[in-house]
Amino acid sequence: MRSFPKPSINWLFAFVPLTLVMEHAHVPAPLLFFSAAIAIIPAAGLIVRSTEQVASRTGDAVGGLLNATFGNAPELIISLVALRAGFSDMVLASLIGAILANLLLALGVSFLVGGLRHHEQLFNPSATRAYSTMMLLAAMSMAVPSGFSRLAVADTLVREERLLNVGIALILLLAYILYLVFSLKTHPDAFASVRAEGTEHDEDKRWSLGRAVGSLLAASALAAWLSEILVGAAEVTGKTLGMSQMFMGIVLLAIIGGAAESITAVTMAKNNKMDMTVGIALGSSIQIALFVAPVLVLASYFIAPSPLLLSFSRVEVIALFLGVLLGSMVCGDGHSNWYRGVQLITVYIIMALMFYLLPALAQ
Amino acid sequence: MRSFPKPSINWLFAFVPLTLVMEHAHVPAPLLFFSAAIAIIPAAGLIVRSTEQVASRTGDAVGGLLNATFGNAPELIISLVALRAGFSDMVLASLIGAILANLLLALGVSFLVGGLRHHEQLFNPSATRAYSTMMLLAAMSMAVPSGFSRLAVADTLVREERLLNVGIALILLLAYILYLVFSLKTHPDAFASVRAEGTEHDEDKRWSLGRAVGSLLAASALAAWLSEILVGAAEVTGKTLGMSQMFMGIVLLAIIGGAAESITAVTMAKNNKMDMTVGIALGSSIQIALFVAPVLVLASYFIAPSPLLLSFSRVEVIALFLGVLLGSMVCGDGHSNWYRGVQLITVYIIMALMFYLLPALAQ
Amino acid sequence: MRSFPKPSINWLFAFVPLTLVMEHAHVPAPLLFFSAAIAIIPAAGLIVRSTEQVASRTGDAVGGLLNATFGNAPELIISLVALRAGFSDMVLASLIGAILANLLLALGVSFLVGGLRHHEQLFNPSATRAYSTMMLLAAMSMAVPSGFSRLAVADTLVREERLLNVGIALILLLAYILYLVFSLKTHPDAFASVRAEGTEHDEDKRWSLGRAVGSLLAASALAAWLSEILVGAAEVTGKTLGMSQMFMGIVLLAIIGGAAESITAVTMAKNNKMDMTVGIALGSSIQIALFVAPVLVLASYFIAPSPLLLSFSRVEVIALFLGVLLGSMVCGDGHSNWYRGVQLITVYIIMALMFYLLPALAQ
Repeated sequence: MRSFPKPSINWLFAFVPLTLVMEHAHVPAPLLFFSAAIAIIPAAGLIVRSTEQVASRTGDAVGGLLNATFGNAPELIISLVALRAGFSDMVLASLIGAILANLLLALGVSFLVGGLRHHEQLFNPSATRAYSTMMLLAAMSMAVPSGFSRLAVADTLVREERLLNVGIALILLLAYILYLVFSLKTHPDAFASVRAEGTEHDEDKRWSLGRAVGSLLAASALAAWLSEILVGAAEVTGKTLGMSQMFMGIVLLAIIGGAAESITAVTMAKNNKMDMTVGIALGSSIQIALFVAPVLVLASYFIAPSPLLLSFSRVEVIALFLGVLLGSMVCGDGHSNWYRGVQLITVYIIMALMFYLLPALAQ
Repeated sequence: MRSFPKPSINWLFAFVPLTLVMEHAHVPAPLLFFSAAIAIIPAAGLIVRSTEQVASRTGDAVGGLLNATFGNAPELIISLVALRAGFSDMVLASLIGAILANLLLALGVSFLVGGLRHHEQLFNPSATRAYSTMMLLAAMSMAVPSGFSRLAVADTLVREERLLNVGIALILLLAYILYLVFSLKTHPDAFASVRAEGTEHDEDKRWSLGRAVGSLLAASALAAWLSEILVGAAEVTGKTLGMSQMFMGIVLLAIIGGAAESITAVTMAKNNKMDMTVGIALGSSIQIALFVAPVLVLASYFIAPSPLLLSFSRVEVIALFLGVLLGSMVCGDGHSNWYRGVQLITVYIIMALMFYLLPALAQ
Repeated sequence: MRSFPKPSINWLFAFVPLTLVMEHAHVPAPLLFFSAAIAIIPAAGLIVRSTEQVASRTGDAVGGLLNATFGNAPELIISLVALRAGFSDMVLASLIGAILANLLLALGVSFLVGGLRHHEQLFNPSATRAYSTMMLLAAMSMAVPSGFSRLAVADTLVREERLLNVGIALILLLAYILYLVFSLKTHPDAFASVRAEGTEHDEDKRWSLGRAVGSLLAASALAAWLSEILVGAAEVTGKTLGMSQMFMGIVLLAIIGGAAESITAVTMAKNNKMDMTVGIALGSSIQIALFVAPVLVLASYFIAPSPLLLSFSRVEVIALFLGVLLGSMVCGDGHSNWYRGVQLITVYIIMALMFYLLPALAQ
């Protein structure tokens, strides 16, 4: 345990054997669901840390690439498992939910916790602006196929709709690759302080390459296995607790998948490393929109019962845009205080409340 | 009269006896309506001034609280009266209208009048940013139950809808209380110049506490009585002049309720006290959204024929968002000039024109 | 040819005789369409340059006025011809398309090309802010009658709808005139560097007044004649290539009409004159919204089979707002780099792809 800098998360590993026992004891689905959910958190944390360790062995550019690509591995794993099981509505909801959880909840709690300790906290507004435009671009790209699918009710347009989805997925991936070139290669200066503080963050002991790669593989396998249990128990859990697929995806799965990263963001805010906080929360949202979403669309042709279309419901698209708008407005000037945290959390709670009450309609 | 610094408004008190006479002379409803409307303006002005006088007797925090809470007393009184009379559509429209009148009309006229005298006027952009995010948050919170009520056409969701409305009302009130803590207690510095100029504003003679409290009570009673007449004559006036409930609420009631404050905002702009102007116009919008609206929702359970739901029509929600977006964009950099005033007024006129032409449809 | 500083465009004049030959040879419509389209580009370029030459003979204010008014003459000419031929959907689409082509494509290519040469490019953020608010105002004004026409399905509201359209057209023209007063007369300083570099731009040899006016008239006549051919071939071209009226207007006509100006914008960016670039791209969008659109509405009463109503489809309005929002966000801080260009172009491509796939529905 000595080598783990954040013991708090790792204690949750106790839920792994507990989940294993529960699964064979045939406990009620909700119990199993929440046990698996909690057990995923430390596994996700281990994935993130192993990736950092592997990345520290490579050059700067490759390292940045690895971090950027595997940073949202937990979300990706859960989504892939749910996608294979055919829960495409839940997967779509979890994409929106993950972005909202990062933009509103993780950032909000970070601002609140950091702001209660420090009167005012500063971060690099130029980086934030770059993140904000990326988010807006991503939100637009995700809204286009949704709008299209609502207009294209006639079955005759199925081919066009798939074409549009695959086209947009490829364009987003290309935009993401160029974004990596931009942020890691040509303009790392625009994200300056994030990187400067990044070095301090590496105060962890360095792992051997074998241990790092091994941890990464083991943690990923563990997360995949737990995701299977989670997704398997999701349907019955939703029915038992009166929660819709959409609510489960947009709130529960989203929080579970991002919990490890969010905890890091809050810790950084407490230590007044706001550039790290903002980089994690906003950077993570961008990866979900520009990397996880298109990968899921493309992967669905191979693993899912039917292709995944980015056809979010209207209320999801509106929630996404409002989240992005509020997020960029609140972060725009590179200042934060406790009340900005309250604002972000308030909007998150109102949205969650709405999504909770909505399903009764079987929307 | 000597003690009244703005005789222009107070001359309108002449409309109080005029309204009284008209009411008993059974004049046509429109005449009575407009007479009562004009008579409310000086009463509202007196409420605002008495509140300031009472507030100046207390400590800073309590004073700020009093000002913040009673600043929109006129709007609140008119709305409560209309709510009790069952005009809930008009009340909802007047909430949106009051925000638009502040954000677009009062601010626009202030920028125009101020800008014609001064080449460029400056104000605290950090305060404006705080106001803008509050407004966006408020607009979102008001849009959520509206969207919900449009989705929840089935009568089976009545209970959920009421729950959502009461829940959001409580969350908004809590956010408002924390906002007062933030702006009065922990971060008054973020609103700095507003306060600095505020002291100059107190050049009025100081009233005795008795006179201040007495004026406040008398003016409130007067406003309530005039509101009864106004609301009583509203229905017939609307039919006679071909104006819908929505137009009457969104344009007429909104302008009447906010006239006293708007005049103050314009006067401040003329004297180049832009922080005061912006503080009044934006601060007032925030109070309406975060204080008046939730109070009306909660009060409706006690005084109205049926509970008030924040279910604004789609066009009202869009108008609100566009107003907030334009308002924050125009004010965002802490500069103003006459053309920005023209821009705000233009959008207000176009919206008012649309709302005027819309009702023929019996929308 | 010596007096033409940009030979690349003028070589395209070769397409003028080619188009003439094609028209009499009865070639397939698409060939004729694209030949006329290419031939319009140098004609448009000549209109722009002649206007500048005439303007340089007058005082500053009149010159600014001329440039501002005739700057979008090509778009205006094409639209008037299409309007007379009764293609009102195509005209509406070309208005939106011209704004998007300026805001996303011309600006995007400029940022990309400029950014590949220069690490970071700067421009006047205060001018950009003024442009952005103008664009938002214009987008709102164009959205209002669209929303109205969707609500006013009943035929009984035809009179109200026309009234609203003419009213808004007049308000927009008035706002445009005041904008010229603001930018040319009272606050030219807010657009400072644009003007400073503007003088360098006049390195062209000065033409005689006769030549300038003659060129302007000849080029306009040429553009009008080519527009007749273009519009005449548009319907068959669309059917042959499977493109809807909306797609042809929003992508093809828009790019053709603005090509000359866009090429200038990109050239300026390459030479690091970003204020010119931003001034051309954003200024042109504003002119289309506040000058071309209302002129077309008013002109339709005289030349078109039926009055033009600004009733854009929902997807057009949303595309317009998203374009404006992204444009102002990307330009907001007066910095540009290659990746911002990529972002703008990405959104343009996604929108164009959507509009291309949409028509199959006969939307």
